[in-house]
Amino acid sequence: MTFPDGPPASSAPMSQSLDSQKSAGVDDRITVRLGPRSYDIVLGRGIEDHFGGFVRQLVPQAATALIVADEHTQPIALRLLSHLQACDLQTGLAVVPPGEGSKSLAQLSTLYDALYELAADRRTPVIAVGGGVVGDLAGFAAATYNRGLPLIMVPTTLLAMVDSSVGGKTAINHSRGKNLIGAFHQPRGVWIDTAFLDTLPTREYRSGLAEVVKYGVIQDAQLFALLETEGNALQSPRAPRLPQVIARCCRIKARIVEQDELEETGLRAILNYGHTFAHAFEVVGAADQWLHGEAVAAGMMCAARLARRIGFLTEPDLLPRQERLLQAFQLPLAPLAHWNVDDLLAAMRRDKKALAGRLRFILPRQTGEVHLVSDVPEAEVRAVLTEATIV
Amino acid sequence: MTFPDGPPASSAPMSQSLDSQKSAGVDDRITVRLGPRSYDIVLGRGIEDHFGGFVRQLVPQAATALIVADEHTQPIALRLLSHLQACDLQTGLAVVPPGEGSKSLAQLSTLYDALYELAADRRTPVIAVGGGVVGDLAGFAAATYNRGLPLIMVPTTLLAMVDSSVGGKTAINHSRGKNLIGAFHQPRGVWIDTAFLDTLPTREYRSGLAEVVKYGVIQDAQLFALLETEGNALQSPRAPRLPQVIARCCRIKARIVEQDELEETGLRAILNYGHTFAHAFEVVGAADQWLHGEAVAAGMMCAARLARRIGFLTEPDLLPRQERLLQAFQLPLAPLAHWNVDDLLAAMRRDKKALAGRLRFILPRQTGEVHLVSDVPEAEVRAVLTEATIV
Repeated sequence: MTFPDGPPASSAPMSQSLDSQKSAGVDDRITVRLGPRSYDIVLGRGIEDHFGGFVRQLVPQAATALIVADEHTQPIALRLLSHLQACDLQTGLAVVPPGEGSKSLAQLSTLYDALYELAADRRTPVIAVGGGVVGDLAGFAAATYNRGLPLIMVPTTLLAMVDSSVGGKTAINHSRGKNLIGAFHQPRGVWIDTAFLDTLPTREYRSGLAEVVKYGVIQDAQLFALLETEGNALQSPRAPRLPQVIARCCRIKARIVEQDELEETGLRAILNYGHTFAHAFEVVGAADQWLHGEAVAAGMMCAARLARRIGFLTEPDLLPRQERLLQAFQLPLAPLAHWNVDDLLAAMRRDKKALAGRLRFILPRQTGEVHLVSDVPEAEVRAVLTEATIV
Repeated sequence: MTFPDGPPASSAPMSQSLDSQKSAGVDDRITVRLGPRSYDIVLGRGIEDHFGGFVRQLVPQAATALIVADEHTQPIALRLLSHLQACDLQTGLAVVPPGEGSKSLAQLSTLYDALYELAADRRTPVIAVGGGVVGDLAGFAAATYNRGLPLIMVPTTLLAMVDSSVGGKTAINHSRGKNLIGAFHQPRGVWIDTAFLDTLPTREYRSGLAEVVKYGVIQDAQLFALLETEGNALQSPRAPRLPQVIARCCRIKARIVEQDELEETGLRAILNYGHTFAHAFEVVGAADQWLHGEAVAAGMMCAARLARRIGFLTEPDLLPRQERLLQAFQLPLAPLAHWNVDDLLAAMRRDKKALAGRLRFILPRQTGEVHLVSDVPEAEVRAVLTEATIV
């Protein structure tokens, strides 16, 4: 799968990605061009003081706003709330328990209640302050309350910054399927303050690096090479190169979403590299509580092994390179041995990308190039799920 | 509010609305032009045998389908189900209790379960067989399962045929607000078989006539005049003119939705003539169990009285003409006297069309022309709510 106009970002040297757009505290600004649904991703470090102005620009006529956070991001949310109140926005705060369990109809209902109590109208923004869970849940509430409220994403995890806060996917979970209930609802703006990463638990931060590696494999060989040389430094959220890396990931995602907003052509599906496996790991291995990026890391390894096994991979070196990188980030490289392979296969057949129960995977051909492959023989998938496991 | 190109349908004489598009059992076909989301409304009488072909054309690759019905429409749903199975579609049936109470998160959840049990994939259509409640609920499930499944509307009430099945509004209720949770999700097709009306309770049928009158007032003076001359005949669902009247309403709605799909410009809002009052009647008077069309009839009378009171109405005759017509259809002409006026006003301020608590109404200037009017003094609204009531 390649872009008609060549790769979107990899043609520019990394050192040039900080350009002349700098303004008060903001280091970078990436526009996601979707016609009437276009929006900016604003990126900087320690830019909290500008948050009120950012929101006011997006919803100049709003009288009220709702911030959604979890218990971990509540301190950040409270600071942002005071900035909004200084801008004459009557702001409510809804706090949900941390973790995947909050992506439920029950928690969704508490957000509807909070919006009702706030007397939210069509101009009231929902502001998601947190990681993927808060963004997905608050995003779905914004997509569906009054048939759609403005949504502002304030990702506080690396994973949310490079992936889930951009592109308009919102969702909650069904008892038997992750993200089974959701909507496409683009945000009005995305606010990335990398200072929020300083207090992120190391394991959470590393989980986000899995999605960064993903962008290298699916689209950007130069980014992949940079990760290999800067891998050690990038293990700290204070790495000087990190903002550039995040911006580069956001640009790749923006260009893909612009061309396939609703995941119809198959292009957007490449963002799900490793994810068919990963979702199965998260469902079947729920008790083992892997973070999403951990599941994606093991999922990408399975996808690469599957590509090699069926003769799809033309760059044999990709597999050991990807393995070394994920290992450096201390991410899992295979599923756990005690997960039942039949259960994993059943979960994959339920994946949203599956059609009539047939398995479809995003498989790499070489670094920077992946394809959607249908009708992979089940025996090959089964072999991959057993050839390497973690005991 | 007028159309840039003049009224959409009223320029064609009623007798010409049955045109050369007739094909096997189908008397009329109206296209809603929304670019990639365009779809047809197919209309006829006793056309059940063609249903399988209609669905197959819309979702040629689907392996499964889910029909949603309530206890009243279950017999129709079972017949349609057998037509689909004859077309090689593995079809499930979900039956919800009749009535507004089914537009709940709890019933929504049962539809998600049914889709999961069916192993629905992105091609699986949700087919709503029923009135507004079934259409709104099944439509919202289709809008949100897997981030969007194809939706096919089979309205079985007059109200659903002329209004709720066309235009993509889907919703469930919040404990304190009607349609507070929802999404815009256009159907792939709408199937109107007027024979379904033969078994509709008379009160339900008359409730639908209120929405027909609405189209006359908001957009189509010719339709309004026809209703005045044909009013007696139209009290039976077997009236020969009825299919033409339904088609004309659908055309008006289609032309409005085409120009303001997401209710952004204010044009689509004119479809809510009478509805700000009506929603308040339905919330505050829930115990009195008015049908939606009954609330709309009384709401239109209140809106017309409000327009006269504030000097907005330029055709004084509109008010008695609308009153005579609604009375002929045995619809209520005012709110019940025991409803608390403060409660009604509070409910109106929560209306989705309200902004920052200010009241906004669709008010008639003359037959066929209404406008969105902001900042109506509360005292005038209060006066209208008390000047005429039903004891």
